[in-house]
Amino acid sequence: MQTDKMHEECGVFGVFGHEDASTLTALGLHALQHRGQESSGIVSYDGQKFFVHRGLGLVDDIFNDTAIISKLQGPYAIGHNRYATTGETLLRNVQPLYAELSFGGFTVAHNGNLTNAMTIRDELIHRGAIFQCTSDTEVIIHLVALSKKPTVLERLVESLQSLKGAYSLICFAEGRMIGVRDPNGFRPLVLGRLNGAHILASETCALDIIGAEFVRNIEPGEMVVITPEGVQSHRPFARAASKFCIFEYIYFARPDSVIDNKSVYEMRKKIGQVLAQEAPCDVDLVVPVPDSGVPAALGYAQETGIPFELGIIRNHYVGRTFIEPTQKIRHLGVKRKHNGNRGAIEGKRIVLVDDSIVRGTTSKKIVEMMRQAGAREVHMRISSPPITHGCFYGIDTPSRKDLLASSHSIQDIADFIAVDSLAFISTDGLYRAMGEAARNTAQPQYCDACFTGDYPVELTDCLKAQQEQITLDKAC
Amino acid sequence: MQTDKMHEECGVFGVFGHEDASTLTALGLHALQHRGQESSGIVSYDGQKFFVHRGLGLVDDIFNDTAIISKLQGPYAIGHNRYATTGETLLRNVQPLYAELSFGGFTVAHNGNLTNAMTIRDELIHRGAIFQCTSDTEVIIHLVALSKKPTVLERLVESLQSLKGAYSLICFAEGRMIGVRDPNGFRPLVLGRLNGAHILASETCALDIIGAEFVRNIEPGEMVVITPEGVQSHRPFARAASKFCIFEYIYFARPDSVIDNKSVYEMRKKIGQVLAQEAPCDVDLVVPVPDSGVPAALGYAQETGIPFELGIIRNHYVGRTFIEPTQKIRHLGVKRKHNGNRGAIEGKRIVLVDDSIVRGTTSKKIVEMMRQAGAREVHMRISSPPITHGCFYGIDTPSRKDLLASSHSIQDIADFIAVDSLAFISTDGLYRAMGEAARNTAQPQYCDACFTGDYPVELTDCLKAQQEQITLDKAC
Amino acid sequence: MQTDKMHEECGVFGVFGHEDASTLTALGLHALQHRGQESSGIVSYDGQKFFVHRGLGLVDDIFNDTAIISKLQGPYAIGHNRYATTGETLLRNVQPLYAELSFGGFTVAHNGNLTNAMTIRDELIHRGAIFQCTSDTEVIIHLVALSKKPTVLERLVESLQSLKGAYSLICFAEGRMIGVRDPNGFRPLVLGRLNGAHILASETCALDIIGAEFVRNIEPGEMVVITPEGVQSHRPFARAASKFCIFEYIYFARPDSVIDNKSVYEMRKKIGQVLAQEAPCDVDLVVPVPDSGVPAALGYAQETGIPFELGIIRNHYVGRTFIEPTQKIRHLGVKRKHNGNRGAIEGKRIVLVDDSIVRGTTSKKIVEMMRQAGAREVHMRISSPPITHGCFYGIDTPSRKDLLASSHSIQDIADFIAVDSLAFISTDGLYRAMGEAARNTAQPQYCDACFTGDYPVELTDCLKAQQEQITLDKAC
Amino acid sequence: MQTDKMHEECGVFGVFGHEDASTLTALGLHALQHRGQESSGIVSYDGQKFFVHRGLGLVDDIFNDTAIISKLQGPYAIGHNRYATTGETLLRNVQPLYAELSFGGFTVAHNGNLTNAMTIRDELIHRGAIFQCTSDTEVIIHLVALSKKPTVLERLVESLQSLKGAYSLICFAEGRMIGVRDPNGFRPLVLGRLNGAHILASETCALDIIGAEFVRNIEPGEMVVITPEGVQSHRPFARAASKFCIFEYIYFARPDSVIDNKSVYEMRKKIGQVLAQEAPCDVDLVVPVPDSGVPAALGYAQETGIPFELGIIRNHYVGRTFIEPTQKIRHLGVKRKHNGNRGAIEGKRIVLVDDSIVRGTTSKKIVEMMRQAGAREVHMRISSPPITHGCFYGIDTPSRKDLLASSHSIQDIADFIAVDSLAFISTDGLYRAMGEAARNTAQPQYCDACFTGDYPVELTDCLKAQQEQITLDKAC
Repeated sequence: MQTDKMHEECGVFGVFGHEDASTLTALGLHALQHRGQESSGIVSYDGQKFFVHRGLGLVDDIFNDTAIISKLQGPYAIGHNRYATTGETLLRNVQPLYAELSFGGFTVAHNGNLTNAMTIRDELIHRGAIFQCTSDTEVIIHLVALSKKPTVLERLVESLQSLKGAYSLICFAEGRMIGVRDPNGFRPLVLGRLNGAHILASETCALDIIGAEFVRNIEPGEMVVITPEGVQSHRPFARAASKFCIFEYIYFARPDSVIDNKSVYEMRKKIGQVLAQEAPCDVDLVVPVPDSGVPAALGYAQETGIPFELGIIRNHYVGRTFIEPTQKIRHLGVKRKHNGNRGAIEGKRIVLVDDSIVRGTTSKKIVEMMRQAGAREVHMRISSPPITHGCFYGIDTPSRKDLLASSHSIQDIADFIAVDSLAFISTDGLYRAMGEAARNTAQPQYCDACFTGDYPVELTDCLKAQQEQITLDKAC
Repeated sequence: MQTDKMHEECGVFGVFGHEDASTLTALGLHALQHRGQESSGIVSYDGQKFFVHRGLGLVDDIFNDTAIISKLQGPYAIGHNRYATTGETLLRNVQPLYAELSFGGFTVAHNGNLTNAMTIRDELIHRGAIFQCTSDTEVIIHLVALSKKPTVLERLVESLQSLKGAYSLICFAEGRMIGVRDPNGFRPLVLGRLNGAHILASETCALDIIGAEFVRNIEPGEMVVITPEGVQSHRPFARAASKFCIFEYIYFARPDSVIDNKSVYEMRKKIGQVLAQEAPCDVDLVVPVPDSGVPAALGYAQETGIPFELGIIRNHYVGRTFIEPTQKIRHLGVKRKHNGNRGAIEGKRIVLVDDSIVRGTTSKKIVEMMRQAGAREVHMRISSPPITHGCFYGIDTPSRKDLLASSHSIQDIADFIAVDSLAFISTDGLYRAMGEAARNTAQPQYCDACFTGDYPVELTDCLKAQQEQITLDKAC
Repeated sequence: MQTDKMHEECGVFGVFGHEDASTLTALGLHALQHRGQESSGIVSYDGQKFFVHRGLGLVDDIFNDTAIISKLQGPYAIGHNRYATTGETLLRNVQPLYAELSFGGFTVAHNGNLTNAMTIRDELIHRGAIFQCTSDTEVIIHLVALSKKPTVLERLVESLQSLKGAYSLICFAEGRMIGVRDPNGFRPLVLGRLNGAHILASETCALDIIGAEFVRNIEPGEMVVITPEGVQSHRPFARAASKFCIFEYIYFARPDSVIDNKSVYEMRKKIGQVLAQEAPCDVDLVVPVPDSGVPAALGYAQETGIPFELGIIRNHYVGRTFIEPTQKIRHLGVKRKHNGNRGAIEGKRIVLVDDSIVRGTTSKKIVEMMRQAGAREVHMRISSPPITHGCFYGIDTPSRKDLLASSHSIQDIADFIAVDSLAFISTDGLYRAMGEAARNTAQPQYCDACFTGDYPVELTDCLKAQQEQITLDKAC
Repeated sequence: MQTDKMHEECGVFGVFGHEDASTLTALGLHALQHRGQESSGIVSYDGQKFFVHRGLGLVDDIFNDTAIISKLQGPYAIGHNRYATTGETLLRNVQPLYAELSFGGFTVAHNGNLTNAMTIRDELIHRGAIFQCTSDTEVIIHLVALSKKPTVLERLVESLQSLKGAYSLICFAEGRMIGVRDPNGFRPLVLGRLNGAHILASETCALDIIGAEFVRNIEPGEMVVITPEGVQSHRPFARAASKFCIFEYIYFARPDSVIDNKSVYEMRKKIGQVLAQEAPCDVDLVVPVPDSGVPAALGYAQETGIPFELGIIRNHYVGRTFIEPTQKIRHLGVKRKHNGNRGAIEGKRIVLVDDSIVRGTTSKKIVEMMRQAGAREVHMRISSPPITHGCFYGIDTPSRKDLLASSHSIQDIADFIAVDSLAFISTDGLYRAMGEAARNTAQPQYCDACFTGDYPVELTDCLKAQQEQITLDKAC
């Protein structure tokens, strides 16, 4: 059911000053697993040496051994989860990246995506730099290495000033941990505290897992420098409008996280409520599409008073690989992950509530499953506006041509997935659910480029590729 | 969160007459994974030869290769999932068991537990029989092998007549598939149909996954014999009162299954409703303990009108192994599997709804997690009566001394798990939710021995062990 | 180069009364690895319980973990290496076999092959016995289980009296370790001593590896019973002529073993000397076919005075799997395991000395490799007579039709492998090398059935299979 | 037995212009496995793209899958085996190294060791270069990347002109394969031909395995550039005296290789003959220490007329891991790899012939094993002079303090390993065996620094480390 989703590409986590820094980091990454499932890594520092362990797979599989954790020594550690956006899930792409530079070791974990990394990379290669991986993050390390500034902080600031796009970074060098969000603050980053230790994390759920206390958000354009003396805040960039990704609230963040003082769970319920106001439905039951559709469905049900029922039952034991059903039995409608709950929905009119439609393939199967389980009418309500554009700021989206809503009307989509009715929340409705009066069209309060095509930061690499007629992984 | 549960020990599945019999069986076992997670096996037959593949682990891991499935040739296949009740998760214990007997191959998959298997086993060993595994099921094969009756059916009937306890069996021999339920019908067994093929399965959810149609339940004491000519029904045993395990409705079966024309999901909701009537609670929110507590919590919420909220968020990526937090950070309250949803419950009075309390250790942690996430009051309601006795009919229960309710009052338990109030559904309430007027104390309509100690079938091996002062895996 | 060999099928080892019994057994099996490379197992006993570990693969791979060894508790242990003769390398066939019988646990490790096992097995199945594996050894356990005799020893003797063929057994039951050789003593078995502990082993090299002292051979037809009181010798069978397998001296045993007071290495050198006398060769160099041909080649060189040279160099790093060269590069003459030593043989006339020719395929390749490396003439001398018949006493031989010498003259073979001349040692020459005046044709001093077709023990199963027109794995 | 040896660190292989280039390279690396056992890699090129596969382990384990080989597309491929000299057997150190530079892909495989790599590396890091691995080879890539010269060839020449030490390189870039040996030609490199394809390899045995024809040695200081037009030879360096490593003849190279028109096998025999002349011994048998001592032992035996016998038998099945014998049974003298051949040596006076003594620990155990097997006298003769100095040109040697001969007299060593007499070949004797009149002390014909401390190329990094009091992996 998760196959037709957009994917957050990364989660980051860092600990400064705790004797169990690596264990805490592994736990933090575990709590951030939803932000990247293909690889994970930790770099620790014991005051003298850096220790690195990175692997392909889930956090629990990579850090499943006390021997591995015990080699990641020292009271400082940063970690990263990654969902590769290209075909290359190579080990050398796994973050945190690490390099020994002239001033010592430098390591960086990056959530986001730079929009001019390729352009800068080409320049650096012409100057003799050697790139080891295909990730955009590596340009940061090269710029820091080549900078003539005396301190790491100055080198890092100089480097970031030449870069565009989205980045929430955790770096470690010269005994200090640095957290930075790009001037627009596309992706989240929070500061926490655990006894005397400082924590940086993508989301508050990663503070919860280790029992750390939430201190505050890192602000867009802010750089915090953590030393044994405490946390210093810097503002090295020209001030820019905040453009936090609104989709973090709709789907990417974990529902138990709190972003900018807003509970993600409560926001999803409110979105469901507004959706119910905008697109009511005369049905017997509200059925969530598990699991991400549940909060919006609860909001929809509470707003309308229609009973909320688990009309789809999840199999808890779905492994990663399985026998492929042969062509002959595929038509039987194999349901490995979910099953329609006939006992609840037979003979009923239902409305399915889901968070998004990307390609539409999964929605079509769910609707069919509901009808096989006896639903008399199947309506669908979506807690995001139609997705019409790709994301270039750290979310994995399919090519624009594969986004169903980029080329099909809502009625076309309803026909394709074979529902009795279909509605999406409106963009303004979404902003209202978020507590705004409406979307500020001149300067939108959030990044909503995937719904509107209104990209806040120039897509330099994309434009260059179009001029040079090069094919990128993700066409603009 | 599932660690403090009783466990169903087995699931069985069989296909007669479909060219993809083994693939269908693997899918059926996948849908029955909740009935046994430690090992799985399939035996197929192509009209001339038997093919066997068994392994330790989950169905998806054991049958993850088309090469494996393609070796399980033929249009007949039976399969088994197992949750070992003893320490011995040895491969040779994995079912279906298979032996070449004088009349040809014989294979059997067994859900349930025989209460006089050890006694008979000792007699057979004294007569020179060689046992290969420690499972009670092996006595069935030996009795069939030693029987002097001319046909497999007669041999099987003769064998079962000397056995006591719980068994839902699927056997295959002499070109026919045989399904049997013991006279009391402790465990479920259903008959389905997929085009021309016949299916036997523990639960209807395994029919759904392959798109098969539900035909009917196998009755307690019924033996069905499936041949190319069709399904014959036999009644080889003295008639006995039906004693279906009432806990299948409370927890073991999958909510999307239908047993005896009752939707498991709907029964759980009704139990929640009766629980709400018996033990109301003045709170702000109803919070289910995921995932098994959800239907009862929905029933509780619908009956009381109190909002249903996801106060506990599950991490979808919990692997099987993980770094052990050191002693120093254990007190931090590590929450790998779940997290309290502060956004929803902070400052609220909540009632947690769960299906059972076995040892109480998990409940205690959940309550603590709720308080850490800011709940003002935490009450708990349990959709089963207190579990005071072990099960000897196919469910894995801890020793009686480890059952919290066997030696503690409800108030003691409430103190132990540190809730503001605690209530269990009454036994009569449970029967009312099931549609009965009340529990028939003279002849209870279900097996409820784990709540009442009222064992419908003699525990022969237990009594013998007590007399001989032998320690069994599970003390009576 | 080992691919065109006959294979010894089993090695056995046992320790009685040493605190490191399992470790010593693993080491003993390691030294006996040449007698069976497909599976290995150890059963130990701590005075109360038996512990079993068996696996597929080499000893070093199966017992590569101290955790495994430390679970095999107790001062008594027996072990077994196996080279499966049929396609079934299933785990359940791996020895030592173990069963719980009426008098307690019984375990057996068997080197050899019974010639009437199938016949008895069929009878036992008709009486209701259940067989778990396809190995002939399992009939021994069933006969012991069904025997009405009061003691294990009497049961075992009764069982063996009904069995025909080759067996060197190590059994453990009722606190005693039992070693038996069949009346003809086809396969070896020796007794050793390590401090106070008693050792049984197939060959003396397995005593050497643990530093044990050689005590004596177990005699053909002898049964030794080892208890804490010491070693008792029994003679339960009718006396029969000794028929030790002469091929153990030629190829199967390790050269550093001593059998019946004869050094295997020295015997191989003597065979090479007699071969040189019978079939001299006017050449520049004697080149051994590595590694088994080396001692005979040394004998040949010493007898003739012709220099011994390593004309074939072995690659020490040949793994078990490797990329298959495509059809296009196969003709290049890929030499993964060996290479001709051009520096030594270019322009020279050489005689290759090898121990046997089975199918001839490897010999053909070696000869070609020698010519490519520049040898001017290539002659071949073989230190066994032509192999014309299969073995049914514990050696894996191909079907008779695949034995090159069963249907081809020596000149045909010479043409096939493309040598300038070819000679085999004569049967009488072989006996002379062994210290006999000649082969006693009325009652040969050794079993030499593979050269002569003179089978000392009736092939009951074979004859039955021929009568019933059943295909066995190995046709008579 | 191989544990007390010095180790060749690398083997290289390349194919230009064959449709099976990667398969041939895997086979070539297999034949060169003795030159590096810890990791292996292949980089191929199909005319447009480069393909890389590298892994830790043996060639057969890394390239054990046709799927892996088939991804290494194209008619050009280079490969590398590595024995890590430091603790870091990390994947990112595995060669061939590859980088995308401004002119396109560049890949290099290096046999040897640079003596000023650390010094240059430090300079490059200060200029902003980022190093990914700890291997000295990476400086070559950086120098090539930073060079301002227009062509790859000029860039490579410029880079090598600033480097000191030992290198036999195979590079691929801009559609050409380049082979280079450093001006002193420490390590070997040969050119071969297979139909129309060109081959470069460390040794001729790697030509033999694929059936390629030997063309000629690459000369010290020569650079060959292979294009579809053929092989061009360049001499970009100032001419220097040839300093080929004499130990390649003694131990490192495979005996079936031919280096500089000298058969390695024949040279080893000649060394054995000179050793016999210099240090005769009144014994009954000459016993080689397997396997590397065999040719010298044959030479010794042929020169003296004393019989050559296999007094030590190797176990062919020694796996990489094994149960550790407990402290209690260690004293039993466990002999997993070898066993004394009592049948051959009991009561005899023997001389063991081996190629070198490094730490002496293995020699001590062998001598003890010989005495346990009954040898009356045990003498030892070594076919190299005493090793007193470490190698910095591509051979892994222990720290100087661990070289037994660096601080002990021959008599001390004889006492330590407990032999009746001990002798090493003299340095002059070694040169005579190589066909020289004597060692030219002014300008030795070979590099023999490990015997003499006479280092032909400055150890820049070592001297710098001494000045800066840094600890290197290998102290000068």
